[in-house]
Amino acid sequence: MSALDSLKADLSGLQIEDNPQIVKQKSRDFFWYSPVLKQQLDHVTGDLVVTPKSEAEVIRVLKSCYAHDVPVTVRGAGTGNYGQAMPLSGGVILNLAELNKVKEIRPGVVVAEAGAIISKIDEETRAHSGQELRLHPSTYRTATIGGFIAGGSGGIGSINWGGLRDLGNVIRLRVLTLEAEPRVLEMTGEDLHKVMHAYGTNGVITEVEMPLTAAYDWVDVVVGFDAFMDGVRFADAVGNQDGLLLKELAPISAPLPHDYFLRHQKYIRKDQSVVVCMVAPFAMDAFAAFVGRQPKASILYRSDTVDEDAKKGLPPVYELAWNHTTLRGLRVDPAITYLQVLYPFPNHVEKVRIMTDLLGDEVPAHLEFVRFDGKITCFGLPVVRYTTEERLNEIMRLHEENGCPIFNPHRYTLEEGGMKQTDDVQLAFKREADPKGLLNPGKMIAWEDPNYDYSSDKLFLFPGLKRA
Amino acid sequence: MSALDSLKADLSGLQIEDNPQIVKQKSRDFFWYSPVLKQQLDHVTGDLVVTPKSEAEVIRVLKSCYAHDVPVTVRGAGTGNYGQAMPLSGGVILNLAELNKVKEIRPGVVVAEAGAIISKIDEETRAHSGQELRLHPSTYRTATIGGFIAGGSGGIGSINWGGLRDLGNVIRLRVLTLEAEPRVLEMTGEDLHKVMHAYGTNGVITEVEMPLTAAYDWVDVVVGFDAFMDGVRFADAVGNQDGLLLKELAPISAPLPHDYFLRHQKYIRKDQSVVVCMVAPFAMDAFAAFVGRQPKASILYRSDTVDEDAKKGLPPVYELAWNHTTLRGLRVDPAITYLQVLYPFPNHVEKVRIMTDLLGDEVPAHLEFVRFDGKITCFGLPVVRYTTEERLNEIMRLHEENGCPIFNPHRYTLEEGGMKQTDDVQLAFKREADPKGLLNPGKMIAWEDPNYDYSSDKLFLFPGLKRA
Repeated sequence: MSALDSLKADLSGLQIEDNPQIVKQKSRDFFWYSPVLKQQLDHVTGDLVVTPKSEAEVIRVLKSCYAHDVPVTVRGAGTGNYGQAMPLSGGVILNLAELNKVKEIRPGVVVAEAGAIISKIDEETRAHSGQELRLHPSTYRTATIGGFIAGGSGGIGSINWGGLRDLGNVIRLRVLTLEAEPRVLEMTGEDLHKVMHAYGTNGVITEVEMPLTAAYDWVDVVVGFDAFMDGVRFADAVGNQDGLLLKELAPISAPLPHDYFLRHQKYIRKDQSVVVCMVAPFAMDAFAAFVGRQPKASILYRSDTVDEDAKKGLPPVYELAWNHTTLRGLRVDPAITYLQVLYPFPNHVEKVRIMTDLLGDEVPAHLEFVRFDGKITCFGLPVVRYTTEERLNEIMRLHEENGCPIFNPHRYTLEEGGMKQTDDVQLAFKREADPKGLLNPGKMIAWEDPNYDYSSDKLFLFPGLKRA
Repeated sequence: MSALDSLKADLSGLQIEDNPQIVKQKSRDFFWYSPVLKQQLDHVTGDLVVTPKSEAEVIRVLKSCYAHDVPVTVRGAGTGNYGQAMPLSGGVILNLAELNKVKEIRPGVVVAEAGAIISKIDEETRAHSGQELRLHPSTYRTATIGGFIAGGSGGIGSINWGGLRDLGNVIRLRVLTLEAEPRVLEMTGEDLHKVMHAYGTNGVITEVEMPLTAAYDWVDVVVGFDAFMDGVRFADAVGNQDGLLLKELAPISAPLPHDYFLRHQKYIRKDQSVVVCMVAPFAMDAFAAFVGRQPKASILYRSDTVDEDAKKGLPPVYELAWNHTTLRGLRVDPAITYLQVLYPFPNHVEKVRIMTDLLGDEVPAHLEFVRFDGKITCFGLPVVRYTTEERLNEIMRLHEENGCPIFNPHRYTLEEGGMKQTDDVQLAFKREADPKGLLNPGKMIAWEDPNYDYSSDKLFLFPGLKRA
């Protein structure tokens, strides 16, 4: 009997899917944002999808996978676009979609199962006590909270709260190990970093405790500018207004807003750059006063005064921002791709100017203003009009040479997409929690190849990633 | 019949106090924090106190004062310590204590009458929907919201929201003019600056609309350090932690904490400096993890783990901070006074070091970390072991020479305590709203003496301030 057959026998009674077409479809995430990853990962599939209904069932799966040496790739909604959830060695796709209950809500705190959809959590916390999560990705209505913590970094709300990595933005994680007898660990404080943004390579998050903040009926606002840099300066200034409560602040260069935001197109000229904002309703007077001080700014759209019929057809502006900007671009022009850049404070505005001058319409700018180590600065998710992988690498090198670090979204490993160095804490925890190396194989280079040279431009080639 | 007798006749039926002892007592604010102001203002008194019960009654008072040319000094609880509410020309003390209703609460917003006590507003907004005001002074339990807006600048909560002057921290003010027929104005956006922090010199605020934020059972924490500068660096670092929700962050140099905080004294050694914090309860794990990273920091006191009996005897830590630090000092040593300093970002920590090295125990440091124009920096409210006015002026000059602007709390005028220049917007509005110059006379130099030289060290001598 094969390992998989033994596993299936062990897991009888659990919800298992092994139809190869369905398994392949359920193995995929949004890796295809990247033409590089698309080529590398398009054939990847797991062998079966297991959908446990309780933590006890998750433990059964992990115990059996350990016994039979079957790889396990945990998955939320598969909305990541670094290939985080792609099962490079096949095996079990551990689908946590049915671990989706909100278990407790109190002032400032929600406890939820890892598979809960982020917007569903907010629906419950809003109804309960006018609270909502601090941070969410643009895939708010599809992504799971566990997937966000394991594979995301920040998003809407980061203009106030920084990133997930910041102390205090996750309170507690409940984590299972992949051992003969899986342990249940409760992690808080310094321990959280062991498993956060580790792509599920060193533990399975089953429950999260997250801080909440006050929920509002955020007003979607699009502010227009003739010159992109005026929009950037506006965003930097408004982000530094301490009394103006925003949840989102993203300058996007012409012609992207007109070309990609099809349902908002009627509000935006082709040569117009925009700053996309979410503003607290009671801050709109102050926001409008601030816009009034900027002769080059004009409000093109605000959801609190637009007529209800017009509004119905429009997506919320958080679905114009972060990775949704790229997603909308890909729908219009499948040839584009994108980058992720940090423009470090205090020279972020000047660095944006240098890079946009240098690269022009080959790399139209999309910025996301955030709090980063206490300062207002910006990340970039510029669109790249893709030609070759060589040119893409050159564009990245130009950013790095100008002091703008790249978080490479064309790599599926933790290290290459992040800090380009071994994370000793996460590696040490993997040794404890996944001694056989079965959790999401191939994503942590430090585990696979401790001597790997991160300075290489080449993609790390996971030996287990065998072509079918 | 004298003007005052005519006024009294006009106001028959209103609550009026004219017993000179009671009027003098009700004329006073906390000007005696300053030995300079104490000497200047100790004899000042109004002629009668009028306590209207409605806005209609306020209008009656204003109309009659205009008709009979009687000065009007509006007063909340008289907790200001710049002499803001001292009636330099006598006349009517307009006591708004009975205009104290909370009129409306909705998500993010409270509407209250100007005389409402700040902590009472929070009691109602907390009970209604778990919300509270963003900012309050250390005189939370006695000060009125209108007095805070007319005479204050920030306080507890400024670490998150900046100051009252920042767009968005006040939504709307309802203001009466002092004319033959007083007008009722609703001010929002850019107009707010006309009357905010104008000491009631150009209008009478009767109603305020303020933003709310989420209310929590804040944990009082005192963190101890052997060296004051280690406390300053800790505060600067923790203030820049975007995910750690604090409401107050104040380093105070030894020996002040031990000597002045008598009921907390058992927790603090005489040679120990402290950082006083208010931390969201759900952030305590993260806060403790952050303290754990600093080998020189130790938590001396936290209100969430101390035994209930011990806690009962202790004031909340916001009553150790801002102007309450000085107040507690004055109770122990009436010879001290204080200053108000800005240490500008990004050199604030270094500037604090320079000034504390320079002035030693003559000027023990007390800092308040705040958001200021989007950055975390600190104000100082250092204690001054007072000798002479000349030395006090020299200490202020030393600050200015080292690039640390002083907001002089030993001056009763708007200009001398603030930016040392005419505020054209407030002056223009006074021309409209108080054509006879009857509102809080002597506080706006630009009105009294348009050619005044602000570079002088000397106190502006209001001609109307006649010695009894």
